[in-house]
Amino acid sequence: MADWDDIPERLLMGPGPSPVPPRVRLAMAEPVLGHLDPVFLSMMDRVSSDLRHVFGTENRLTLPLSGTGSAGMEAAVANGVEPGDHVLIVQAGLFGERMADAARRQGADVDVLDVAWGEALDPQALADRLKRSPRPYTAVALVMAETSTGVLQPMDGLSDLVHAHGALFIVDAVTALGGMPVEVDAQGLDIVFSGTQKCLAVPPGLAPITVGERALARLRARRTPVASWYLDLSLLERYWGTERFYHHTAPISMIYALAEGLRLVREEGLPSRFARHRRANRTMAAGVEAMGLALGVEPPIRLPSVITIQVPDGVDDAGVRGRLLNEFQIEIGGGLGPLKGRIWRVGTMGEGARLDPIVRVLAALEAILERTGGVKAAVAAWESSS
Amino acid sequence: MADWDDIPERLLMGPGPSPVPPRVRLAMAEPVLGHLDPVFLSMMDRVSSDLRHVFGTENRLTLPLSGTGSAGMEAAVANGVEPGDHVLIVQAGLFGERMADAARRQGADVDVLDVAWGEALDPQALADRLKRSPRPYTAVALVMAETSTGVLQPMDGLSDLVHAHGALFIVDAVTALGGMPVEVDAQGLDIVFSGTQKCLAVPPGLAPITVGERALARLRARRTPVASWYLDLSLLERYWGTERFYHHTAPISMIYALAEGLRLVREEGLPSRFARHRRANRTMAAGVEAMGLALGVEPPIRLPSVITIQVPDGVDDAGVRGRLLNEFQIEIGGGLGPLKGRIWRVGTMGEGARLDPIVRVLAALEAILERTGGVKAAVAAWESSS
Repeated sequence: MADWDDIPERLLMGPGPSPVPPRVRLAMAEPVLGHLDPVFLSMMDRVSSDLRHVFGTENRLTLPLSGTGSAGMEAAVANGVEPGDHVLIVQAGLFGERMADAARRQGADVDVLDVAWGEALDPQALADRLKRSPRPYTAVALVMAETSTGVLQPMDGLSDLVHAHGALFIVDAVTALGGMPVEVDAQGLDIVFSGTQKCLAVPPGLAPITVGERALARLRARRTPVASWYLDLSLLERYWGTERFYHHTAPISMIYALAEGLRLVREEGLPSRFARHRRANRTMAAGVEAMGLALGVEPPIRLPSVITIQVPDGVDDAGVRGRLLNEFQIEIGGGLGPLKGRIWRVGTMGEGARLDPIVRVLAALEAILERTGGVKAAVAAWESSS
Repeated sequence: MADWDDIPERLLMGPGPSPVPPRVRLAMAEPVLGHLDPVFLSMMDRVSSDLRHVFGTENRLTLPLSGTGSAGMEAAVANGVEPGDHVLIVQAGLFGERMADAARRQGADVDVLDVAWGEALDPQALADRLKRSPRPYTAVALVMAETSTGVLQPMDGLSDLVHAHGALFIVDAVTALGGMPVEVDAQGLDIVFSGTQKCLAVPPGLAPITVGERALARLRARRTPVASWYLDLSLLERYWGTERFYHHTAPISMIYALAEGLRLVREEGLPSRFARHRRANRTMAAGVEAMGLALGVEPPIRLPSVITIQVPDGVDDAGVRGRLLNEFQIEIGGGLGPLKGRIWRVGTMGEGARLDPIVRVLAALEAILERTGGVKAAVAAWESSS
């Protein structure tokens, strides 16, 4: 296997994929079972049950879709939206834009509520837009953790506004699930999707999704079939539910990885895991600021999972990222869209949300940017918090 | 990791997934790279190039979609068919039915050319249908290796008929790729998709697809956007091509598995691999017949990758499969649709296309069915062929 020796062991501190722990990687090397094997079926049940736990939901229809996080987005939109539906998408970054694109492809009449990149939606702006709309919306969609901007959308009160309007609430939790509370039931979210390669510390390839009763009722009342056979939740419900009606061959080895990743989450406990992500985020922020670099987003809307750093004037964005990768084996992310060349995106997700990888990033940045104080401040911040 | 000890090591001799060799399983345990890492990008190039080799094509747009074989079917149909298109689907088993369903979901006007389950399409029947249609078809789709019936569709001359009619030719090669010649360029196939868990001996999770110039021209001339953002080949082309335009986060570890599986194919060589599948198929067939069991399909339309066996009168289909699984750790498949309870489906695919696993299946069947002669005949058949 000569050239597997050439795969470098990178420290993945970008906006995802995040570092994958050895236990998860080794799970994928386990013997492959058939997708109808009783042993595999019972693993599916456990994965669903563990996903309910991290989503904070009792939703029966909770499963990992056989595609990456983007397939989750597509499934949420393709099932929750019909041709001709009037849909409102909150667009505060790249991933909101994509939902709008996906909804238009379903033939929906899409309105966009634009929020400046780097800011969160003001609930009053949503209330006004819903009130002003001459024609009711059937669905409202937003991103709760916008990876492209590093903004955490406060969710309190939003679902009440959406439901009072009579719409479904579709939420992108890709960069949130497993690293911060998602609370599908308590927050009243109708369809919520995520990915595995962020705070769950599993390789990319699956899209956890959960669908509540309000959304199920809407699905059953659709006037048109879901355009996607592969992502039709009514068919997937029969495969993942007690009926076990064959739909497609599940990606067995990826399900193993997710099962093991979810077991690690269970062993740690959600409150400890969320606290660790917050602590890591404060630690990274303290280190970055002590080096004289400016953060792109301040609390309380700063994501615990991804920090954005403003690229200092006169510094070559891509050059710095290239040196981090090639000299230090560290991956961080650049900016997207209007933020291209203007920010770096550094993840503190999953196994990256620990002191050691944060110190590695800061030490490398100190060396490349010829600055000091980052590591020291980070260690102090880590030790003074918990 | 206590309960990984409970994962039994099954011998996967059903219609897929097939046995996954250790080298492929271990590749998935390699360190995860970022999806934009130059080392990963070069692996993507190699995977594309190796896929072109097994597809028998020079098509630039040749890549593994981030979903299972069914996602390949959906991508082929969603990209190759537009709302209002007049489409002909050859329906000779479950997977043809699914393509018809997927095409209808795209808003196409779908005609079905029905072929009895267990038989192949007669080219004359296709010619007649094309000639008789009052309105031309924009696409014709069929399954070249129908896993549900065990029938291999002879492809000679079909694409000439389809192209003379002015239609695109969409072909499902899920249970063919890597185990028998597909020959996309020589056969003039326009969009061909497959899965990894059959003759390629890789876990399920990716859908190799290849798209020719005729199909690309059609894509560029579409009147409507592809309903699926996730499977839009025009976007994927920009990600997998030289532009490397970010689309979604590729399932890194699954790509590792496919890269290693394709390397094994390269090491063996396609002619040897195809010969091994034919030999294994003859071997399994000889063993089954020597036990007094009847095969469902005879050469030349018998698939080299999946044999169907008629369940003998008075024998409990599910009971036999349950004993194979629980007492012998061997998985074989049952029948689907009209063949449910009437046939068994036994794969000789990838690593299952060797004497040893075939003998294990036959020995277990001899014991359960209280018959003799299968193993002996199989060994003789294996040794007399090459």
